[in-house]
Amino acid sequence: MKYSLLFGAQSFEHEISIVSAISVAKKLENEVAYIFCDTNREFYLIDSKELQSITFTNSKYKKYKKLELKNGGFFTKGIFSKKIDFDVCINLVHGADGEDGKLASMFDFYEIPFVGPRVEGCVLSFSKHLTKLYAKEVGVNVLDYIYTQKENTPNIKFDYPVIVKPTKSGSSMGIRVVKSEKELDYAFDTAYEYDTSAIVEPFIDGVEEYTLAGAKTGDDFEFSMIEKTQKEGLFDFDQKYLNFSRSDIIKEADLSDDIKNKMKQLFKKIYLNMFEGALIRCDFFVIKNEVYLVEINPIPGSMSNYLFNDFSGVLKRVASNLPKTKSIKINYEYINSIRENK
Amino acid sequence: MKYSLLFGAQSFEHEISIVSAISVAKKLENEVAYIFCDTNREFYLIDSKELQSITFTNSKYKKYKKLELKNGGFFTKGIFSKKIDFDVCINLVHGADGEDGKLASMFDFYEIPFVGPRVEGCVLSFSKHLTKLYAKEVGVNVLDYIYTQKENTPNIKFDYPVIVKPTKSGSSMGIRVVKSEKELDYAFDTAYEYDTSAIVEPFIDGVEEYTLAGAKTGDDFEFSMIEKTQKEGLFDFDQKYLNFSRSDIIKEADLSDDIKNKMKQLFKKIYLNMFEGALIRCDFFVIKNEVYLVEINPIPGSMSNYLFNDFSGVLKRVASNLPKTKSIKINYEYINSIRENK
Repeated sequence: MKYSLLFGAQSFEHEISIVSAISVAKKLENEVAYIFCDTNREFYLIDSKELQSITFTNSKYKKYKKLELKNGGFFTKGIFSKKIDFDVCINLVHGADGEDGKLASMFDFYEIPFVGPRVEGCVLSFSKHLTKLYAKEVGVNVLDYIYTQKENTPNIKFDYPVIVKPTKSGSSMGIRVVKSEKELDYAFDTAYEYDTSAIVEPFIDGVEEYTLAGAKTGDDFEFSMIEKTQKEGLFDFDQKYLNFSRSDIIKEADLSDDIKNKMKQLFKKIYLNMFEGALIRCDFFVIKNEVYLVEINPIPGSMSNYLFNDFSGVLKRVASNLPKTKSIKINYEYINSIRENK
Repeated sequence: MKYSLLFGAQSFEHEISIVSAISVAKKLENEVAYIFCDTNREFYLIDSKELQSITFTNSKYKKYKKLELKNGGFFTKGIFSKKIDFDVCINLVHGADGEDGKLASMFDFYEIPFVGPRVEGCVLSFSKHLTKLYAKEVGVNVLDYIYTQKENTPNIKFDYPVIVKPTKSGSSMGIRVVKSEKELDYAFDTAYEYDTSAIVEPFIDGVEEYTLAGAKTGDDFEFSMIEKTQKEGLFDFDQKYLNFSRSDIIKEADLSDDIKNKMKQLFKKIYLNMFEGALIRCDFFVIKNEVYLVEINPIPGSMSNYLFNDFSGVLKRVASNLPKTKSIKINYEYINSIRENK
């Protein structure tokens, strides 16, 4: 199985995607084609020897071959256009473009096999509001919330502190903890820099957050270990950034088997019929022995490779069990029958 | 304002899209570039003189210039590649590719201004299940339903007859009215030819269905007249096909002002912050003076042009008020700061 790794693109998490690509590359024995999408959404084929951050920060990537996305794959530009050789593309673009459904749509349109969420899973997980609706529908607990749009003034039914989040941002950006009513306007202004709507939730100080990654590989699920999220207060961009590039050994969270099993059952409910073909990470709160979904990361940082004992094996099994799309045949019978009747 | 009209693609409604393009073209005074996407997802620039059904049914379209979709627009292929000149592309691809978010994603990725639903609106309206969840959340009534997946046997809590629909099909295909329990398996088999999940609803014989099209054009909404849906039993593919190619004069539905206003208010709730940039059609049931959303058609057949007195004016105002997307600037400050600290 030969992979291509696609990373970068026009996203607030562009830089995290570069870190992810470097981190994932280290875990793969397979031959890999590295495809970088720059912020102008031009594709480049990067030499594996130069897969390091400086190649992108100093624009050195521009010396590499430009690629075009077309029916069946990525091709070099020019008269002697050549198809880039790979079996499955791994979508490693975090945030916009990668997790909002754009690249998934393009891969489906051009019939390029890929590991990653499909467009419907992207749209549901990219919006904190739709995530809540979807989770409730499949029987997964979420924290109570208020959904509000820019032009409205919401009634805050919770005690302070609360947390205000843009509905869509694809990262922790634009999120503020609000200690009292007088800080509220500023928090909404911050959120509305990223989206036209926001979610307000009670902020639970010191709540224990856990993270679990996994995928359906064939008939079964394969799960990572469950990790307790390391953070102080809010998990900010810098911390997240460093977190995804780490290589330390992870300790399994100290939770009862009952809670662990519950988390896995909820993960399956979220995953089934929505995230096939993707390796996703779900973050959960545990409050008084109840498990609540916090968010779905359909392309987690570094694909959470550090949480798996056999990351490259799991990835290979996901890549070998991609969902099939039916192709639609058109024989013009309707137009022909109408023409005949004229 | 110069338009391009995009139609065809790999969809069960490929043929309806051709009819739509021919019908819409007749209503436009502007200069238009006609772009046909065939079922292999190759794009062709069609001469306006040959915009007739036979051009597509006998493959004559293949003699026209092939186009590529790239950053900024559609371009002719080859060494002397030329950009196709238009200001706004009108997405007229019904069903899959057009209404499931694929083409919307590609237009957004390549920064091509377009009239049509954005990816989030596509995903919500393409799934009959997500449409229900979304409508309920924004305060719009829907009929009670059961959502079920292929591997489960649902408990039918309704009296027969019921109606069984694939969750996603983008048309009336795969839908069956079930008169008694013994017909149920066959109806599910039919639905599961189109999707892995299905929706069951009570079938209300003789219910009155109405259709209303409209769009937000600037600060205000512009609505079509409300039409009572002409149908016997179920609105099947042939009838729908003929319906969208008709040119007869439509009569405004005989409804009280109260119900008409209610319908328009519900339309606005559905539309706001989700369908900006699109001209959509909503279908409603009226049952005992209550209005229920049946479905959202984010790219209605022939854009419902026959329901508007000033279709080309409305379209121009939609095209002049497209939602803006913020572009994201990346300065590599995170990677640089980490490199400096090493």
